[in-house]
Amino acid sequence: MKLGIMGTNWITDAFVEGALNSKEWELTAVYSRTLEKAYAFGEKYKVENYFDDIELMATSDVIDAVYIASPNAMHYEHALQFLRHKKHVIVEKPIFSTVAELEDAHKVAKENGVYLFEAARHIQEPNFKILQDSIQKVGKLHGATLAYMNYSSRYDNVLAGEEPNIFSLKFSGGSLVDLGVYPMYTAVALFGVPEKATYFATKLRTGVDGGGPVIFEYPDFTVTILHAKMSQSFLPSEIYGEKGTLVINPLTGIKEIKYIDNHTKETEDLAMPTIPNDMEFEATEFARIIAEQDTLAYEDLEDLSKQVLQISNDLRHQNGIWYKVEQ
Amino acid sequence: MKLGIMGTNWITDAFVEGALNSKEWELTAVYSRTLEKAYAFGEKYKVENYFDDIELMATSDVIDAVYIASPNAMHYEHALQFLRHKKHVIVEKPIFSTVAELEDAHKVAKENGVYLFEAARHIQEPNFKILQDSIQKVGKLHGATLAYMNYSSRYDNVLAGEEPNIFSLKFSGGSLVDLGVYPMYTAVALFGVPEKATYFATKLRTGVDGGGPVIFEYPDFTVTILHAKMSQSFLPSEIYGEKGTLVINPLTGIKEIKYIDNHTKETEDLAMPTIPNDMEFEATEFARIIAEQDTLAYEDLEDLSKQVLQISNDLRHQNGIWYKVEQ
Repeated sequence: MKLGIMGTNWITDAFVEGALNSKEWELTAVYSRTLEKAYAFGEKYKVENYFDDIELMATSDVIDAVYIASPNAMHYEHALQFLRHKKHVIVEKPIFSTVAELEDAHKVAKENGVYLFEAARHIQEPNFKILQDSIQKVGKLHGATLAYMNYSSRYDNVLAGEEPNIFSLKFSGGSLVDLGVYPMYTAVALFGVPEKATYFATKLRTGVDGGGPVIFEYPDFTVTILHAKMSQSFLPSEIYGEKGTLVINPLTGIKEIKYIDNHTKETEDLAMPTIPNDMEFEATEFARIIAEQDTLAYEDLEDLSKQVLQISNDLRHQNGIWYKVEQ
Repeated sequence: MKLGIMGTNWITDAFVEGALNSKEWELTAVYSRTLEKAYAFGEKYKVENYFDDIELMATSDVIDAVYIASPNAMHYEHALQFLRHKKHVIVEKPIFSTVAELEDAHKVAKENGVYLFEAARHIQEPNFKILQDSIQKVGKLHGATLAYMNYSSRYDNVLAGEEPNIFSLKFSGGSLVDLGVYPMYTAVALFGVPEKATYFATKLRTGVDGGGPVIFEYPDFTVTILHAKMSQSFLPSEIYGEKGTLVINPLTGIKEIKYIDNHTKETEDLAMPTIPNDMEFEATEFARIIAEQDTLAYEDLEDLSKQVLQISNDLRHQNGIWYKVEQ
């Protein structure tokens, strides 16, 4: 399948590499605001088509699908331009700023007979599938701790009085949508939508959240999500049950899944060897869904994306964090 | 100093060993409901005095102080009997069921010119003092995760339809007061009393809590406490700051304190070698406070004990958990 890309930063490079590794995609077009930047990115992949006009790229027939990694707040506008011209769209997480945007974009995708994906790569990892299949080992579920806290060098800029995109209301930033989205996806994919969610956010001078614990309450158990961009954690994640505990490390690009029995204390290693670039798995799956028109699998991802965004929106609003696009 | 003991289970054995190791105490009397059990416990320590009558032991002059490790719900009644007869009292954690009991017992202790201690051993460890002195390394505090979750073999009894003391309202049981008390003590000792505390308890058939996350909210940061007696965790604890992270493992009997810089990623090992029985430290400190009549140090411990119990009471009540003694 023919892939175009929008955005020329490290994540785009990583996605392109993963997509090419999957053998399902060829990179046929690069968009950037200047052709120079587009060419600088694309030449190492021997790309033939370069655009500095989105509409031109969206109407061209050199791409079947586009991967969008523009700043969060622009995902919606950019995705719509491609969907309207019947291009499949893969948007880097967090997909959009609001549920209203997501519902609208899903509608436009449907009307145009194309698919809209959120690039939540970790739930497509083989080790995530192993984790999913291993949940039953712990017996009756007692809860989980899902940790994803990385100190961001951009936090230094915040401390210096600046307002980098990722920490700004204007660009729909903050820790919850940037890092919290991973454990939230994990929780919703494994355990479903919680009955209640509570976010104890630490708010920054810029108006967004720097991190804080999130509690997902289910009828019989509780999931604790730890995320932050202003602090560094080295904690693995854990899933607790009546029979034992699953230890997962790390939460994305999972390298280790250990099951430890509560009674025998015996440990079982469940993870399979990993590959350097785990974006290959989502690239493979998105290509498969498009090729096979697997509507069932697509709708599962559509639901998951919407559920996570809905929770994320609610948690932000609980803490009085409203993006510019919502104001 | 001459020590008597009430309770003849493993924790009493451990405390006696620690007290003897400290060289500050000699074991002079053992109480049990039957003299046979008292003798069975005391003979290996060559104890000379045995009691099956509390009043007789409390009025005797063979002890200066008593260590009480009877079931939680009986701590108060037992402590009062000794305090009234001017014996110093060390009560195993959790000290009492309610703040009213603690305030009354503190009053009786003061009236009789003796001290009342809660045996929260971990805050007396040299490595805890090192931790306390190391907090400044992380710079501006961003929060902490304090984990203490051990699967209890008594939980098997709960599953079998029984109601062991430690899981009963009648005996003032549950995970929060049994294991949660350790991280709560750590948090209050390191960071002070939180502005707000919230407990997401999983309640058991017996009416007490099996575990769940507790969130302590401070003006600028949040502490997440993970505790349970129905689940097993292998997580270390962490303290986060603007400059770096302190990793503590485990939370009591601390063996490892690592400081990792957010920017250089350099790791520094701060812990000192441990000893097999960390109860020696509290035994030494309680003897010192008594001998030196260090009222300032005593009042700090008195405050800490009361603050933790107050929070613990509030958190239980939030979840509708009321002990028999409160009903």
